[in-house]
Amino acid sequence: MKPIHHIKISKRMSVSQLLKEMESTNVIGSGRLGRAVSIFEQMINDRDCTIFLGIAGAMVPSGMREIMLDMLESEHIDVFVTTGANLTHDLAEALGFSHYQGDENADDAKLNKKGLVRMYDSYMPAKVYEKMEDFFEKNWKEFENCNNIKEFLWTIGKLTPKRSLLKICHEKKIPVFCPAISDSGIGLMVWGRLAKGKKINVNAFEDMKEILDIAWTCKKAGVIYLGGGVPKNYIQQSMQFSKGAYYGIQITTDREEYGGSSGAKLKEGISWGKLKEKARYVDVICDVTIALPIIWAAVKERIK
Amino acid sequence: MKPIHHIKISKRMSVSQLLKEMESTNVIGSGRLGRAVSIFEQMINDRDCTIFLGIAGAMVPSGMREIMLDMLESEHIDVFVTTGANLTHDLAEALGFSHYQGDENADDAKLNKKGLVRMYDSYMPAKVYEKMEDFFEKNWKEFENCNNIKEFLWTIGKLTPKRSLLKICHEKKIPVFCPAISDSGIGLMVWGRLAKGKKINVNAFEDMKEILDIAWTCKKAGVIYLGGGVPKNYIQQSMQFSKGAYYGIQITTDREEYGGSSGAKLKEGISWGKLKEKARYVDVICDVTIALPIIWAAVKERIK
Amino acid sequence: MKPIHHIKISKRMSVSQLLKEMESTNVIGSGRLGRAVSIFEQMINDRDCTIFLGIAGAMVPSGMREIMLDMLESEHIDVFVTTGANLTHDLAEALGFSHYQGDENADDAKLNKKGLVRMYDSYMPAKVYEKMEDFFEKNWKEFENCNNIKEFLWTIGKLTPKRSLLKICHEKKIPVFCPAISDSGIGLMVWGRLAKGKKINVNAFEDMKEILDIAWTCKKAGVIYLGGGVPKNYIQQSMQFSKGAYYGIQITTDREEYGGSSGAKLKEGISWGKLKEKARYVDVICDVTIALPIIWAAVKERIK
Amino acid sequence: MKPIHHIKISKRMSVSQLLKEMESTNVIGSGRLGRAVSIFEQMINDRDCTIFLGIAGAMVPSGMREIMLDMLESEHIDVFVTTGANLTHDLAEALGFSHYQGDENADDAKLNKKGLVRMYDSYMPAKVYEKMEDFFEKNWKEFENCNNIKEFLWTIGKLTPKRSLLKICHEKKIPVFCPAISDSGIGLMVWGRLAKGKKINVNAFEDMKEILDIAWTCKKAGVIYLGGGVPKNYIQQSMQFSKGAYYGIQITTDREEYGGSSGAKLKEGISWGKLKEKARYVDVICDVTIALPIIWAAVKERIK
Repeated sequence: MKPIHHIKISKRMSVSQLLKEMESTNVIGSGRLGRAVSIFEQMINDRDCTIFLGIAGAMVPSGMREIMLDMLESEHIDVFVTTGANLTHDLAEALGFSHYQGDENADDAKLNKKGLVRMYDSYMPAKVYEKMEDFFEKNWKEFENCNNIKEFLWTIGKLTPKRSLLKICHEKKIPVFCPAISDSGIGLMVWGRLAKGKKINVNAFEDMKEILDIAWTCKKAGVIYLGGGVPKNYIQQSMQFSKGAYYGIQITTDREEYGGSSGAKLKEGISWGKLKEKARYVDVICDVTIALPIIWAAVKERIK
Repeated sequence: MKPIHHIKISKRMSVSQLLKEMESTNVIGSGRLGRAVSIFEQMINDRDCTIFLGIAGAMVPSGMREIMLDMLESEHIDVFVTTGANLTHDLAEALGFSHYQGDENADDAKLNKKGLVRMYDSYMPAKVYEKMEDFFEKNWKEFENCNNIKEFLWTIGKLTPKRSLLKICHEKKIPVFCPAISDSGIGLMVWGRLAKGKKINVNAFEDMKEILDIAWTCKKAGVIYLGGGVPKNYIQQSMQFSKGAYYGIQITTDREEYGGSSGAKLKEGISWGKLKEKARYVDVICDVTIALPIIWAAVKERIK
Repeated sequence: MKPIHHIKISKRMSVSQLLKEMESTNVIGSGRLGRAVSIFEQMINDRDCTIFLGIAGAMVPSGMREIMLDMLESEHIDVFVTTGANLTHDLAEALGFSHYQGDENADDAKLNKKGLVRMYDSYMPAKVYEKMEDFFEKNWKEFENCNNIKEFLWTIGKLTPKRSLLKICHEKKIPVFCPAISDSGIGLMVWGRLAKGKKINVNAFEDMKEILDIAWTCKKAGVIYLGGGVPKNYIQQSMQFSKGAYYGIQITTDREEYGGSSGAKLKEGISWGKLKEKARYVDVICDVTIALPIIWAAVKERIK
Repeated sequence: MKPIHHIKISKRMSVSQLLKEMESTNVIGSGRLGRAVSIFEQMINDRDCTIFLGIAGAMVPSGMREIMLDMLESEHIDVFVTTGANLTHDLAEALGFSHYQGDENADDAKLNKKGLVRMYDSYMPAKVYEKMEDFFEKNWKEFENCNNIKEFLWTIGKLTPKRSLLKICHEKKIPVFCPAISDSGIGLMVWGRLAKGKKINVNAFEDMKEILDIAWTCKKAGVIYLGGGVPKNYIQQSMQFSKGAYYGIQITTDREEYGGSSGAKLKEGISWGKLKEKARYVDVICDVTIALPIIWAAVKERIK
């Protein structure tokens, strides 16, 4: 049995130094956050590891956009699975809009009249949608031949005027999956075109071939879940084909006792064959918008 | 200002009587659960109201299957949006399998060897998937002409041998939507067929026409969210086209401070135009597997 | 392995009937709430069982007062441990005040000016404190000879004009403990007298003799925790002297991963000797203001 | 309206630099954690500010001991309120024991046989209690004249052989309050002496004079709550006498919807007069064992 080390704070610690201290407790919250950094670092340094990143939640409204862009640009992420909301908010910023500092106690009826939509204390101007309409209307021809969701998303990336999640995925050929893309502002833009009689032929199942093929052929899989929902579950189901992930990091505040996928501890995946019995993994119980900047700062400091 | 009534328990209360008592506190948890029953009852009695029901979470593994079937058979649900996991677990039971009482502290590696997959303390036999393979393999011809996900799901329902969520939806012509169907065991079955060279032509965006059309044309929309995720958000985005729901019930344990859709209070929807300013609505902070049986028992007692 | 029974709702179920159905799932939330009812019933029917009840949280502001009174009057509770807040709010009602239905989004500065204090969406008039001042000022002589907190609390009960938690405890000689009584409105009243030069001689440790003696001498201990905090922990530490509880029910939404006592699962108590390895126990993850009325209604229906 | 700044991670950031970036989002989790650092810094730099620190939760078992010691030694904390568990675990370490890295899935009955008590994945040897017995037995004379809990705690500090929370409080004359001291291992030690016929005369209410006097006479109060429970509430009730705190930081994962004190947002305190309407304050929704090392590292870097 190893005694618990108590975290010592010295005067000007780097983020990585602090996280090393936290990891050395090896228990409860600090130990887990520290271990997440260390596992992420190990995934990156293991050249055999293919990293699957799943992201759900209000990442752009909460100021996480640059971190997501940076993670994708780093070339350490091999497969990216996301909600449509993430891509919609990101596209809004790439088209020149901002999200704004708001008030969670605001009068929502007044916000509605002002054309602001609210996500807790973060606002987005509703007129974002008009600009997006233009973007899709103008470029529709390019989308007509997309056969699967990844192609559709890469095409958005190709056409996006500025740096964006999808632009980076397109440029770096990072496979990006969004099974529920119709459940998003981008989905609504497509519907708007369909309502005007335009066509699109994106197959709802076609992307599965690619993600399952990557899972099947990779030497070692590593999974990182920022939040739950479809992104986590879609990667998890592909892990059965990888014979189980070697590495796992999950950050969520959902809990396991309800039996759902989002809150399930990674360990549960061993019964499904989604995680190797000997895998190195950690469940961090934390708001992603707190954990992610810290983890990424520490990882970035450590890797070359 | 009204004083808070303290709940009085008498010797043999019916569920509806108890919930009336709880509602009369009008505050905190009891008041909210009671109000949920009362709003649900009002939605049903309002002939102009079209009820949109979104369900996420481990509903079949937790013993909620009969309640879901009963809700759909009652003809009070006009639109049903669900995760693929829900439909997969339900199909498993309709094909003759059961879920089993398990142990959340079980050794997952041993479960894996025994062919049991775990959802907290509920197990499912992995061989469910073989039987599903047969089901889809045998019936594939029927799926080849499905153009959207709803048709695909109704076709499953048509072919299912026993009573099931999708069978009822098919028989009663209840529009059923599952935007992330590829993210499920059913999705994996389709992939299995694609991998063998079979074809399917389900369009990822096509269903939006129908749900948005229902939202657009209904007199009054009422929304019920059991859990968050895609089912909630997919209905929420359609509400912008209904000019805002008149009634709303949300049951979730996720919290609003993270800014995500799953935890967002219904009130936030007013800024988006998803909920009328004058709507009657309630957020219940509770495990759905506790709240749902209680709510449905009380509602069933009250309605004719 | 037993298959999971799916809850069936029939037209006019009593609360106990519904909870029997819920218990029969034996998994996740429904199974646990149902099991709590069944264990509570068993504790009552086991004549050898001494029931220790710990209550924390906003029970009076949320409309739970009558249920607490009823539980104590039922003579099934042998030891009662509570927060001081509970006793303060209860005394306020016994002195003729009410709590009021409020609004969680109210302007707190305005409430302050109106003399209303807020607990989420429940209000209490601040002038409660004046009436309490009178109560203690007038009756001070009676308190001067109290040597421990229980005597102090029973004395309040004796002097309280109407039915109250403490009045019932006094009348029925139910040992009532509140280790942190100074942390409450009642504590402030005592301070008010001390500030005026009055004396009181209540010993901070003296009550431990009695609760530990009850734990030591009882045949079988059963514990019920509504919320965590001091009430739970104070009973838990006494359980080490009972050689471990035979029965346990815990209702809380706090979680175990932080390592604190309030969220610790009951099972953890086995390592401490606070719970027997073979105990019958359940952790229910639920808002107490939702779970308690349901549990008490079902239990009351079942017991004679 | 200010646009949301997206956090930029550069190669080797100090903790303070990262937290500045996080603060600049000004929304959701990152913004709040960053603001907590900035408010803590401001409290320290405001020479008129008296800082009240309340700590609950498993701080020593989770590796937070050195941080707590460092905070007290820094002389920035003016009043310290804690649970008895905190003091018990701390005394165990000061008497030469360690806590150990354990396993949350351990067999609790086996741990019990091995003499290990479990707090999630952290263990403590049960023989700690024997050494504590010796400590109190040997030194009992010193405790007999203590009249209030603070004197009792300072006396423990005076007699503790090594650096400890209470030793520092005694040496630096930091008022330390623990209203529920009887609810702890230390409480059990006192009971052990009482059971042997020894006497102690600690008054349960006497400390209120001192904490309310500090609140009454301080120029500006600032409050920091790490977790809820008695420490938070005991400081909160004293704030009514300070005419409301000027600064507030709360870190908890409990939620406001249940109406209890632990989860109440700081804003609620404005209705009670516990917080000034114009106060600078923040509620951080986070595991304290994650937030505290980060906050303290950043604060320590910034202050002189």
